[in-house]
Amino acid sequence: MKPRLLTPEDIKSLQADIPEWEVKGKSITRNWQFKNFIDAFGFITKVAMLAETKNHHPKFTNVYSMVKIELSTHDLGGLTTLDIELAQGIDNLD
Amino acid sequence: MKPRLLTPEDIKSLQADIPEWEVKGKSITRNWQFKNFIDAFGFITKVAMLAETKNHHPKFTNVYSMVKIELSTHDLGGLTTLDIELAQGIDNLD
Amino acid sequence: MKPRLLTPEDIKSLQADIPEWEVKGKSITRNWQFKNFIDAFGFITKVAMLAETKNHHPKFTNVYSMVKIELSTHDLGGLTTLDIELAQGIDNLD
Amino acid sequence: MKPRLLTPEDIKSLQADIPEWEVKGKSITRNWQFKNFIDAFGFITKVAMLAETKNHHPKFTNVYSMVKIELSTHDLGGLTTLDIELAQGIDNLD
Repeated sequence: MKPRLLTPEDIKSLQADIPEWEVKGKSITRNWQFKNFIDAFGFITKVAMLAETKNHHPKFTNVYSMVKIELSTHDLGGLTTLDIELAQGIDNLD
Repeated sequence: MKPRLLTPEDIKSLQADIPEWEVKGKSITRNWQFKNFIDAFGFITKVAMLAETKNHHPKFTNVYSMVKIELSTHDLGGLTTLDIELAQGIDNLD
Repeated sequence: MKPRLLTPEDIKSLQADIPEWEVKGKSITRNWQFKNFIDAFGFITKVAMLAETKNHHPKFTNVYSMVKIELSTHDLGGLTTLDIELAQGIDNLD
Repeated sequence: MKPRLLTPEDIKSLQADIPEWEVKGKSITRNWQFKNFIDAFGFITKVAMLAETKNHHPKFTNVYSMVKIELSTHDLGGLTTLDIELAQGIDNLD
């Protein structure tokens, strides 16, 4: 299915679907705190595999046990259905 | 601490310490069944990191959601304290 | 594209296409020797990601710097076009 | 060996030892551009394993084929010998 840009209406109702994510207009962000680097990196690896299968790649930031993931669809200039689908896939991983 | 070969006495009492592992004289083995490849590989990655920090490396076998890990200390010709320590570290990962 | 079982004719000419792989009727196998575990595991991770995107998963065996990959299409009972495509994808990774 | 804070003298001569890194007083940074996400993530995995064995963890930033690594020793408030050692280890990985 082709991704489509979310409308302002979509974005208003988005927070209910992905309560763990911070919705910021053109992107969504979620932070994780693991108990150590091994757990953090095991999680990053799973997200990396999921992202590659969807050919849609997050911005990852990691320091030790902290992981931050930011999603946006740069080609389309903002948040799309693809970001929401990946966010929900990530939510189901950990 | 230098690893030392387990005595036959040690091996007899070993099963109680690592009940999930199959003890086979010169090696120990454990199998995992995950729900899919992503979960299996996330786990393998965590074990790989732990193994590398201990500079003691398992034999890994993986097909899709199945992971098998076999531990032995080839340099010393059998099971050592290092294998037990790594097995317990792995047990604490998943 | 749907994978199809290779014919005996296909299998005869297969070796020329994937010279690094050992062709064994129902499966193909390749071995790698890296300089250490970190290099071996970096490679395994890349193969894992490629395999997941194709939803076709090898049998991996790893001990320290040695990696063995065996490909077969169990659902179809032997070697298929999907195995060859994945083998060529793996050959292009390292 | 215990890490020690680099002196202003050390930092002046640092650039020659790690020419690929940008030296910024309290941290050093290097960027990589790979040909795709699989290559980028294979590299990240190798760095993650090296970092864990040294129990010294970078700040990783990744978007698709771009990887950025920043090193600093927060416990000691700046650049230490440990950062340089890890930077050189990373330089030897790719």
